[in-house]
Amino acid sequence: MDVLQRRLAQFAAARGWEPYHTPKNLAVALSVEAAELVEIFQWLTPEQSAKVMEEPESAHRVADEVADVLAYLLQFCEVLGVDVLDALAAKIERNELRFPVTGGPTPNRHSSE
Amino acid sequence: MDVLQRRLAQFAAARGWEPYHTPKNLAVALSVEAAELVEIFQWLTPEQSAKVMEEPESAHRVADEVADVLAYLLQFCEVLGVDVLDALAAKIERNELRFPVTGGPTPNRHSSE
Amino acid sequence: MDVLQRRLAQFAAARGWEPYHTPKNLAVALSVEAAELVEIFQWLTPEQSAKVMEEPESAHRVADEVADVLAYLLQFCEVLGVDVLDALAAKIERNELRFPVTGGPTPNRHSSE
Amino acid sequence: MDVLQRRLAQFAAARGWEPYHTPKNLAVALSVEAAELVEIFQWLTPEQSAKVMEEPESAHRVADEVADVLAYLLQFCEVLGVDVLDALAAKIERNELRFPVTGGPTPNRHSSE
Repeated sequence: MDVLQRRLAQFAAARGWEPYHTPKNLAVALSVEAAELVEIFQWLTPEQSAKVMEEPESAHRVADEVADVLAYLLQFCEVLGVDVLDALAAKIERNELRFPVTGGPTPNRHSSE
Repeated sequence: MDVLQRRLAQFAAARGWEPYHTPKNLAVALSVEAAELVEIFQWLTPEQSAKVMEEPESAHRVADEVADVLAYLLQFCEVLGVDVLDALAAKIERNELRFPVTGGPTPNRHSSE
Repeated sequence: MDVLQRRLAQFAAARGWEPYHTPKNLAVALSVEAAELVEIFQWLTPEQSAKVMEEPESAHRVADEVADVLAYLLQFCEVLGVDVLDALAAKIERNELRFPVTGGPTPNRHSSE
Repeated sequence: MDVLQRRLAQFAAARGWEPYHTPKNLAVALSVEAAELVEIFQWLTPEQSAKVMEEPESAHRVADEVADVLAYLLQFCEVLGVDVLDALAAKIERNELRFPVTGGPTPNRHSSE
């Protein structure tokens, strides 16, 4: 991932795109790509959504949008100096405390996980 | 990243959340978290947006939302069997062909990078 | 709607918020509010999503987010001088040509309506 | 607006799209359209964003996306029986209490208006 993050930084620098890559713009671009990923699923039932990788065309689209999301996430973290893997490890630890595993059935998944 | 991806899968399984984690729901959750990241920046000027890590409170919020975005991205890729690093490497290669480096100044960053 | 649009403009002017209300920021704020509306539904099944107005708490949240979306949409249109009702009427006409009603069953709803 | 809301409902009914138009799907579609509106602005400076209506192509795109956002907002409100103008009027009243007009300068626009 470090290698990809560096390649993305070089890619942007070589094209003179750095002035466009403010943290605000990169966060916005990330959200636009996330919406493009959602668009693939917007009219699908939950069952249909589980089968998107079976068709080559939608499989390719999914891989493409997922790559775009990660690209902007890494570029965002790069310009702000955030270590995203550290941030995620810390978050998982906090969530393990917030959502203890109970013996019984989980009544309802909490929306603000 | 593999380790984190496995921990996230175990986390969801231990809490009985798997039925909620359809690809559609995870893509939607990813876009909601991306919007929460954007929210931090929505009224900031480009200059202010470059300084969000200087204040502990907004720095923490940024790290938290970035972690959430990656968490849903990894869970989405897990349920669909997509290798996100492979997808990104392939995308960078395609983009290097689509956006060749020119000697002169780049007139305008293309919106559909 | 005109009356509400004018009240929103006066509201922002009275608080000195106009410098923040660039078209870009208002479009971004609109997308953030749309995500907050989506968040209410993110883990619900299609069937559960049809019942959100039955609980007072989620009913209130839905009304609140819908109001926010319309508020930013109207403010966005105000600063750019776009007549949103005209735009929608024109769009419906174009869509009536693009998606003619056929006698038989519709195979699959087109994603880019 | 009532007329347009009814035309949208008839449009969907005539094409057999009602099963797709769950509240969840319509909220998601609304957020996807909001992101398409944002995409127009994502690499623009605040100053450039104020001029999008000067170019016929971007002016048309803006009008088109604004129409899509309103279309899904109205369809969402239709299926859930929400009166969006009432909701907005109530919200403006609450906001007038929450954000009283002060004599002095507003220090910083509050992000969770």
